[in-house]
Amino acid sequence: MRRPRSEPAEQPPAQEDLLLAAAYVSDAQYNRNVPFETSPRAIRLYCFYNHWTLRVATYIFICVDLSLALFEEPAVYPLPFLATATVEILCLTVFFGRLMHFAKVTPQIVFWKDTKNICILVTIGLTLLDLIIYGSLEAAHIHSVRWSRALRPFFLINLPESRQVRRALRSIRNTLPDILYVFLLFMFSVLVFSLMALKLFGDRGLKTAEGSPYLTNILEIAFELYVLVTTANSPDVMMPAYDFNGWYSLFFIAYIIINTYIFMSVFLAVVYNNYRKHLKNEIRKLVYLKRYKMIEAFNILKVQVGVEFVVQEATWKRLARLVVPDLSTSHLELLWKISDEGQKGHVDRMNFLRLADLLNIQVVTVSIKKHPLDIWMPRIYQSSASLLVQRMVRHRVFVWVYDVIILLNAVFIALDEKSPIISRMEWLFLSLYIAEILLKLYTYEPRAYFGRRQFWNWFDVLIVIAALVATVANATIHSARKYNSQQILDIVLILRILRLLRVIISIQRFRVIVTTLINIGPTMLTFGGLVFVVYYMFAIIGMEVFQGKVHFYDANFTAPDALLCGNPALKGSAFARARYCKNNFNHLASAFLVLTELTVVNQWHVIAGGFALVTHQAAKLYFIVFHIVVVILIVNIFIAFVLEAFFVAYSLEKSEIETAIEKKIQELGVGIQEEEEQDEKPTANLSAKDGGFSEEDEGVERKASKGLYCRIASNKYRTVDALLQRMFESELAPDDDGPSLDEILSFSPSDMYLKNPNFESSA
Amino acid sequence: MRRPRSEPAEQPPAQEDLLLAAAYVSDAQYNRNVPFETSPRAIRLYCFYNHWTLRVATYIFICVDLSLALFEEPAVYPLPFLATATVEILCLTVFFGRLMHFAKVTPQIVFWKDTKNICILVTIGLTLLDLIIYGSLEAAHIHSVRWSRALRPFFLINLPESRQVRRALRSIRNTLPDILYVFLLFMFSVLVFSLMALKLFGDRGLKTAEGSPYLTNILEIAFELYVLVTTANSPDVMMPAYDFNGWYSLFFIAYIIINTYIFMSVFLAVVYNNYRKHLKNEIRKLVYLKRYKMIEAFNILKVQVGVEFVVQEATWKRLARLVVPDLSTSHLELLWKISDEGQKGHVDRMNFLRLADLLNIQVVTVSIKKHPLDIWMPRIYQSSASLLVQRMVRHRVFVWVYDVIILLNAVFIALDEKSPIISRMEWLFLSLYIAEILLKLYTYEPRAYFGRRQFWNWFDVLIVIAALVATVANATIHSARKYNSQQILDIVLILRILRLLRVIISIQRFRVIVTTLINIGPTMLTFGGLVFVVYYMFAIIGMEVFQGKVHFYDANFTAPDALLCGNPALKGSAFARARYCKNNFNHLASAFLVLTELTVVNQWHVIAGGFALVTHQAAKLYFIVFHIVVVILIVNIFIAFVLEAFFVAYSLEKSEIETAIEKKIQELGVGIQEEEEQDEKPTANLSAKDGGFSEEDEGVERKASKGLYCRIASNKYRTVDALLQRMFESELAPDDDGPSLDEILSFSPSDMYLKNPNFESSA
Repeated sequence: MRRPRSEPAEQPPAQEDLLLAAAYVSDAQYNRNVPFETSPRAIRLYCFYNHWTLRVATYIFICVDLSLALFEEPAVYPLPFLATATVEILCLTVFFGRLMHFAKVTPQIVFWKDTKNICILVTIGLTLLDLIIYGSLEAAHIHSVRWSRALRPFFLINLPESRQVRRALRSIRNTLPDILYVFLLFMFSVLVFSLMALKLFGDRGLKTAEGSPYLTNILEIAFELYVLVTTANSPDVMMPAYDFNGWYSLFFIAYIIINTYIFMSVFLAVVYNNYRKHLKNEIRKLVYLKRYKMIEAFNILKVQVGVEFVVQEATWKRLARLVVPDLSTSHLELLWKISDEGQKGHVDRMNFLRLADLLNIQVVTVSIKKHPLDIWMPRIYQSSASLLVQRMVRHRVFVWVYDVIILLNAVFIALDEKSPIISRMEWLFLSLYIAEILLKLYTYEPRAYFGRRQFWNWFDVLIVIAALVATVANATIHSARKYNSQQILDIVLILRILRLLRVIISIQRFRVIVTTLINIGPTMLTFGGLVFVVYYMFAIIGMEVFQGKVHFYDANFTAPDALLCGNPALKGSAFARARYCKNNFNHLASAFLVLTELTVVNQWHVIAGGFALVTHQAAKLYFIVFHIVVVILIVNIFIAFVLEAFFVAYSLEKSEIETAIEKKIQELGVGIQEEEEQDEKPTANLSAKDGGFSEEDEGVERKASKGLYCRIASNKYRTVDALLQRMFESELAPDDDGPSLDEILSFSPSDMYLKNPNFESSA
Repeated sequence: MRRPRSEPAEQPPAQEDLLLAAAYVSDAQYNRNVPFETSPRAIRLYCFYNHWTLRVATYIFICVDLSLALFEEPAVYPLPFLATATVEILCLTVFFGRLMHFAKVTPQIVFWKDTKNICILVTIGLTLLDLIIYGSLEAAHIHSVRWSRALRPFFLINLPESRQVRRALRSIRNTLPDILYVFLLFMFSVLVFSLMALKLFGDRGLKTAEGSPYLTNILEIAFELYVLVTTANSPDVMMPAYDFNGWYSLFFIAYIIINTYIFMSVFLAVVYNNYRKHLKNEIRKLVYLKRYKMIEAFNILKVQVGVEFVVQEATWKRLARLVVPDLSTSHLELLWKISDEGQKGHVDRMNFLRLADLLNIQVVTVSIKKHPLDIWMPRIYQSSASLLVQRMVRHRVFVWVYDVIILLNAVFIALDEKSPIISRMEWLFLSLYIAEILLKLYTYEPRAYFGRRQFWNWFDVLIVIAALVATVANATIHSARKYNSQQILDIVLILRILRLLRVIISIQRFRVIVTTLINIGPTMLTFGGLVFVVYYMFAIIGMEVFQGKVHFYDANFTAPDALLCGNPALKGSAFARARYCKNNFNHLASAFLVLTELTVVNQWHVIAGGFALVTHQAAKLYFIVFHIVVVILIVNIFIAFVLEAFFVAYSLEKSEIETAIEKKIQELGVGIQEEEEQDEKPTANLSAKDGGFSEEDEGVERKASKGLYCRIASNKYRTVDALLQRMFESELAPDDDGPSLDEILSFSPSDMYLKNPNFESSA
């Protein structure tokens, strides 16, 4: 992949060399790992391929393609087949174009070796085939199945942009071999217990609470006992035997201890163990690949000065501008100051390798602005009464008073709002909130108060305005029509109650927990993506199999079988008795809700039983497979992820990790530590001392001068990944070349321990 | 605690010095940490205090005291108050005597500083007080409450023997401060959602499936939403709102994601994190205390030889005999050989410190015996036909054939056994099993086959005999009376099916999982103890509050309120509809079963609702508190324990830890590695190559000579504790004196990282 280089000389590098180096640096910056051709044309194509507009466009088309399921039969909003088919073909064309673009960029061998690309091609082909078959059958008025719809999530998974979702899927795949034997042993145990149950209870003639025969058929027993593992039918499945003879409860207790407690814990342990192992391996791969790319870039641009190879200032700056076109001059100068040790006018290899990380560091503009009122009418704003108000607002008692007001408000919300006094109180609270915001705007600089990161201030103001609008609207149209636009009023109502959340900010311990949860947030979205993919596939299959079998009739509908969900097969079933008619697969939204209920586990056997009654007993397999995939695998990986995130945060608390860059920035005195000087700063004029997020800007004013600063996110990494990556990087020697590309790509978790014992054990 | 010592001289140490050293060594051997007086009389008393008969007697009296609840009102087997009171006073006397014995042994200040002792004294006093009050009221025919019964588990917890249970309780207590804030935030979130639910659904006039009003009261909503966190009422609690308007499902989905998934994972993370932290701190304490005691013992016995202090051979051997009186001479000689480096006739400090570990190492007698038949009629036994049979039995195909037979048997068990062919097949299987055992006894040496550790062989033979007896009994009395003695036949039936478990042994991967689980077993019993203590307390309270409120009537009983559990308040309740009448607190066994069902969580709100109906809504608090204590705390600690056990086993796999002793034993060539040469050893005559446990003895025959060997349990530690202890010990320098006693006792988890960074991160 490395193109042959001419001898380094003192002349500036050619534009194509710079472009190639910029592509490497940009890949390192965003952790992209796509091998690309190094011809100038391919590089230009590659830069275009990575342009954000194309990436966003691809995502939009994926969303459109996936959302087609809302409009195809069974549809939420039905559209004719021709319309959906046209949109689908358009999407397929876009995906194919994107793939062809990628094929132009990457070497041929690499392209055809990558299963991702093959997978997309095959999916496009299959979808087209399905469209043609379905279309022609439809034309002949023969109903058939749009089976290729279940393949649509493959586009989401396999496009290079969904690296995170793919990784989550990979951790599931990696876990499978280890979990398989535990699962087989678990199934063996369930079967042995089923046999025992058959022998113990089969010919006792016992009846369940519903009067049906109790545990007489081995398949039914196996299903009931599998359900017992999920605890969904405990203790009902035990009661008839227990009523018959107290000692039989021991059978069920033994079963629950072995299968529910021990086996389920072992599943979690195996999944967690694998997750940890492979997570660290992937991080190591990422770090080495990043370093590999930066070394490539350096080798392209280096010139010899004295005995060492370096990159000249001009080259370095042109490169930085190529990688980040909208870099301001002052920002660039700051980065150069950090990189150029000893003001030599060039950077050595070690400092060059930092470039990718440098470009990722946030730079903030610090400027202390005066309050507009102070400029317009300084005499009044600086008067002693005005200063008293300002001091009052800045005092912590002000925050406490408003906490009390919020709590009082909560009590009034809880009380019946129909009595006139309470609805008048609502006006009082509203005016208090508005007064609070006005006072704050008076005290703090408004542009700082509504700064980009002042999340809680925005939140506050929006909710107060929403509540104001809601109360006014409610009062004016109250007598005319009760609940005019129900949904909007509901949302406003919820927003008003959400205001109570501001109490969290006043309690330090709560803020810490919430901040941790918010930091984990972005990675949790990966799980959202994973769950979405699995749900989508199961939903499409479920819709094809179960659509129209169960109908929901409005509560006021008086048809004789409304209570049986329009299907006489449900007569006397637990499904009909629990009024689960709306839990059906009649359209995508409804199917997603059913799958959510199945994920929560409780009563899943009732839903499974209902759909088995209206189709066939084998339908239960669909629900069992869903349980295994989602609850045993994905939910456990989710728990593993949360555990790991907490432990990494915990071990970071104990031992501060500082990368080379951070040390350098600290030395230069241009860094801002987050959470530095968190308490009491009454003279701060640029930061509203108000929200959990605002404190990040507070360390700034210790520098009186206006200027650029680097923000170092100490202790507050956005993702577990970034954190682990830093931990691993802090262990690497700065002049370590790392293994070769082939070695990196074939890393496996088992050879990890020997090479990086500390990293392995520390996380 | 260290008594003043005279100058070391060449004369043998006095008997009292030896006794004191033996007490220290014995404490180190069993990890006992009781400070005792060092006067000769106190030491003798202390040895007597630690004697196994006294310990067992104490345990028996604790069991008797706890089991009194079975005989007191509400009783399983009622006894008059006078009888139970007499037994209880007897038990109290024994506990008091034991405590006084302890007071004689330990220094006064230490005794009164220890909350354990105070706790026992107070509990004894309170129990006596309660007995007197209850007895006198009973004499006046006034019914009162035996409240002190809930305190009985304190005896179990606080006696020095229950160290493990106390530690588990301690980890709960340590977790509380950290978990408290998460819990408060969680409750805040539940309340905010409750408020929203009230506003959104309160005045819609919706009805639940049972026709009762839906979410109209804030307390009721908070309870329902708390139940939703446990998933027990999902999706029922959502259905009315969802039926009314599909968008309302978003409210419940948001609730479940935040409270069930995220908060519950955070609870697990916090509990696990604390568990790990404190576990390692305790291990460190144990290891240092052990070393401290061994150094004390050394200082008592040391004599100066040249420049170094040593312990003479005669002293060392007398000491070992004092610590383990039934030590055989050959065993002692072997230990001496390991300790005495360079055959100098004395041991230095480093080797002396090993003594406690040495005494804990298993020593096996290895002797190769000839088969009795080989002795009685060698000609026939060594004939080619006989040898062929033996070779056949030893072949692995023999095992496989029997696996197939067992699976076939499983199929036949599953089929209806009433048809005559199948019941005749049962005889065939039985004879095949008997043939297998006879063949094995013919091939392997019978005493080895029925050796102490041949668990699976014993299991096998017992089950075959049981099945034989059962089948014979069944056949003879079948026509006369069907199901003569039901319970015995049931047990035999289960045993017959348990035979299927032998299939596990044939599959290597299954065996590994089962072995791991069995190794974790003993420590799991600690959790059993903890759960028992909590259950007992809750059961006693529950019995006092709920006894007699709900009655179970036999299914054939035709009283009008049999279906209402004899309580009209239950009319129309979910409790009565689900026929939960037998889930009551009318005696201890029944109460324990209800608590088990509450631990499994599902339907707990139905049980709570039922008991709230027959008493008061506040009764739900009892069930909520139980859920928080058992499910949120104890079950999470259990999961944390299983996870940790797996990870420790996993990290041990990667890095072999060898303590000094093991290295020494290996050097001397007197060690037996477990699982060494596991496969195929057709000439082995002493070990039945048959079971998962038998393989432990197989490495033996590589030494042709008869003799004693040390068994080293590599990779197969019985407990996580022992394992962690070894890991920590392997890091300690052999000549490290360790911190002083006071420092050890005040160890805290936070100062751990600085002192032992590797140990901290490795586990």
